[in-house]
Amino acid sequence: MKSDVVTIDLSRIDDYFPDDFTDEEIANGKTLLLKKLSIIYHRFYNGKIQVVPKAGLYGFNWFNVWYTPGVSAVSTAIRDDNSLSFDLTSRGNTVAIVSDSTRVLGDGDCTPPGGLGVMEGKALLMKILGGIDAVPLCIDSRDSNGETSTEKIIDFVKMVQPSFGAINLEDISQPNCYKVLDTLRAECDIPVWHDDAQGTASVTLAGLINALKLADKEIGEVKTILIGAGASNTSIARIAFAAGLDPGKAIMFDAKGALHKGRTDLKDNPALYRKWEICQVTNPEKITELGDAFDKADVLIALSRPGPDYVREEWIRRMNPKPIIFACANPVPEIYPYAAKRAGAFIVATGRGDFPNQINNSLGFPGILKGALIVGARKISDDMAIAAARSLAEYAENRGIEPDNIIPKMDETEVFPLEAIAVARQAIKEGTARRNLSDDEILKIAGREIQQARESYRLLSESGLIAKPDIKVIRNTVDRVVKEIRDKR
Amino acid sequence: MKSDVVTIDLSRIDDYFPDDFTDEEIANGKTLLLKKLSIIYHRFYNGKIQVVPKAGLYGFNWFNVWYTPGVSAVSTAIRDDNSLSFDLTSRGNTVAIVSDSTRVLGDGDCTPPGGLGVMEGKALLMKILGGIDAVPLCIDSRDSNGETSTEKIIDFVKMVQPSFGAINLEDISQPNCYKVLDTLRAECDIPVWHDDAQGTASVTLAGLINALKLADKEIGEVKTILIGAGASNTSIARIAFAAGLDPGKAIMFDAKGALHKGRTDLKDNPALYRKWEICQVTNPEKITELGDAFDKADVLIALSRPGPDYVREEWIRRMNPKPIIFACANPVPEIYPYAAKRAGAFIVATGRGDFPNQINNSLGFPGILKGALIVGARKISDDMAIAAARSLAEYAENRGIEPDNIIPKMDETEVFPLEAIAVARQAIKEGTARRNLSDDEILKIAGREIQQARESYRLLSESGLIAKPDIKVIRNTVDRVVKEIRDKR
Repeated sequence: MKSDVVTIDLSRIDDYFPDDFTDEEIANGKTLLLKKLSIIYHRFYNGKIQVVPKAGLYGFNWFNVWYTPGVSAVSTAIRDDNSLSFDLTSRGNTVAIVSDSTRVLGDGDCTPPGGLGVMEGKALLMKILGGIDAVPLCIDSRDSNGETSTEKIIDFVKMVQPSFGAINLEDISQPNCYKVLDTLRAECDIPVWHDDAQGTASVTLAGLINALKLADKEIGEVKTILIGAGASNTSIARIAFAAGLDPGKAIMFDAKGALHKGRTDLKDNPALYRKWEICQVTNPEKITELGDAFDKADVLIALSRPGPDYVREEWIRRMNPKPIIFACANPVPEIYPYAAKRAGAFIVATGRGDFPNQINNSLGFPGILKGALIVGARKISDDMAIAAARSLAEYAENRGIEPDNIIPKMDETEVFPLEAIAVARQAIKEGTARRNLSDDEILKIAGREIQQARESYRLLSESGLIAKPDIKVIRNTVDRVVKEIRDKR
Repeated sequence: MKSDVVTIDLSRIDDYFPDDFTDEEIANGKTLLLKKLSIIYHRFYNGKIQVVPKAGLYGFNWFNVWYTPGVSAVSTAIRDDNSLSFDLTSRGNTVAIVSDSTRVLGDGDCTPPGGLGVMEGKALLMKILGGIDAVPLCIDSRDSNGETSTEKIIDFVKMVQPSFGAINLEDISQPNCYKVLDTLRAECDIPVWHDDAQGTASVTLAGLINALKLADKEIGEVKTILIGAGASNTSIARIAFAAGLDPGKAIMFDAKGALHKGRTDLKDNPALYRKWEICQVTNPEKITELGDAFDKADVLIALSRPGPDYVREEWIRRMNPKPIIFACANPVPEIYPYAAKRAGAFIVATGRGDFPNQINNSLGFPGILKGALIVGARKISDDMAIAAARSLAEYAENRGIEPDNIIPKMDETEVFPLEAIAVARQAIKEGTARRNLSDDEILKIAGREIQQARESYRLLSESGLIAKPDIKVIRNTVDRVVKEIRDKR
């Protein structure tokens, strides 16, 4: 047993396992351990977030200010000018994370309360990385026939929007997610953000920008293959095209083959209009074979289905020199980085934290939403997502990039206020911001609120109000996992 | 100027005003000051509540436990057994405060975001007094015709209930509130609490129990007059009858006169069925004159319209010896306590904190909801509200009661865990509790969570993370108020 190397920060987790474990056993062991710890500590803490005061309370008389009779002045002031709700209440810094739990991370439909653990995790990320207050709202979107209803989700968000500064849609299954997002973005007066769409696109674009710099290629000149045509990849395509990628040199594949103007199945299904839009501008030569599409391609962006070996080494060998590979399926990339490199890949990015170049949504949404909230933006446009991508890329470039380090990691937290500035600046430029602030003012607010979030956590933790896990429990869990995996041999 | 007596705790607020101020000017000055401070400090803090971690985070690797991949085990565990959501997420201690802001305290329809200040205030009370996490959800309940819709509120709450341990309905206008409450209480699987109804009833009953003790009268033998037949007073009647008050010796009045079996206007309006229920069991003699109803009455419970002098001294003189008066209209009671006492009242209770015997909802909901949450109750029955009332009354009796001190004050915070026990015990008895816990266990959980809430606030405040108001700003505001009132002379 090697559980004596276990530390509270769970670092060097690969070393928790015995020397006779294979790579696969270690990979399985890590996942199993993290899942077991997740159950144990979710139960230990009864969840991950709480609501606490952020205003002073100097004795019970202050309830006469914060509640009746004083608060009456706030109610009537907001009644007479709704925009004051962003200043006089917590609304301006509060995001609703709305999901119907029908596509919870990799686990599919988990029933309405099944998404709560994930949404609380997201709320935790928003607070620690973005200084944002977030409220998980996992909703029952089923109609009287037991079917999930886009109308119900849309109606719910419209009803709840007066209480929030922005809405983060999360883990809503296809094709419902498209209609929900597009309707709400058009009809709400606060930003409606779908992290799987604009969020993934923004972070991927940041990686692409820096990868192209290192490969010394121009974004307008590269040939691109996109595998997978879900919410994420269609958004990546739309946003990358807007950022300069040439759609005429791009080919996208869905499960039925290549997208092009001949795909009448997509033309005829209004729910799939995002895919049909891409059919109209890409793949003018109507190439249909996946392998052929790789000929002289420069960039592959795959968000399709778990690999490995779904993307073949021989295909990568058909690409132009210095191929750039984004193999972002979870939990296993379409091709492992070592295999892609063996076939000549110059840069490989994946969705995983245990390989270089993680395309991690957590690099995007905390800074992007923060910027939108600080200036009270009414929308988050694609250009705002692009501005965030450029600031992410620029931050990494300034501190130095190389093929195995094209994009910041989550712990390079100085990047979030910079993204906030870029996003806010773009909102002001587009005229969707309720407040016009200078870069310095935005930086000051974002920096202060993120610092306060971390400091608040530190105080609660160091005082013991957030109890510390018993390291023995973690060690015992490691031992149990090792035994379980041995028993399966 | 007397603003030099101003202290940060806003104590002795009556003394802030010059000696030449009349009682009325001081009363107006206090309200004006509290309203001005409310605007200033809501803006200063940008609201009153925030979301912070309650789970440990020992470096970024813990996001692998709290978020993907570890959290997958939580999602699938809840998917397979929804009741685990009460243990593995924050749901079990989190309450949604749902309002459509159509009747915000004394200010009527304040438009959807207009209720946020009040709901955040309520969330603050829940946390500090009950150790409960509460989320304000002020919703837009208007249908396509711009009319507020009971169906929309009902649908909203049903959709959101998977994320919460209980729902607190608040400030929904009549008659919508009845249908919303009764439908949701019947159809939700978590408690749906309407503080104006069961909450006010529970605290009023506590006061009544102790008042009767001091007057040496039996609850089953007294004659009662109830003035006002809104959500609060009809609930007081229902719950007091269930607790032993004799409906055959009670007479209730609404704006159109006395309730009795001849009130066909109430019989014919299904939205008013709560009033019709009372018609059927009270006032068998069909007394119609308000003054006559007072003859040989023992108790008056008025929640009607702001006074003073709506209830006349001469009426009180017609009551039996040791009359008990609840004059709870806000902001001005139906009769001032000094006037009621001049007419012979033995005990006078009001809704105000600046007179003795405040019937304050904040004495009820934090403890009642806490008890329901701790055992995972599916409902809050009238008998649970009665159990809370008895524990409130008993706590006061044990520490000593007298005619001007019949009920605890908000700062006697030891009462909340005791209420929680009483409510939880009753839920277990009725079979609606998800968990069976002993009194000791309930006390331990309630005590710890309330203490943690206060300690968390103290830490944030003392560390300066919650900034302290500048006393000079408060003093200047006092000066401005004094000047404003002088100028109006």
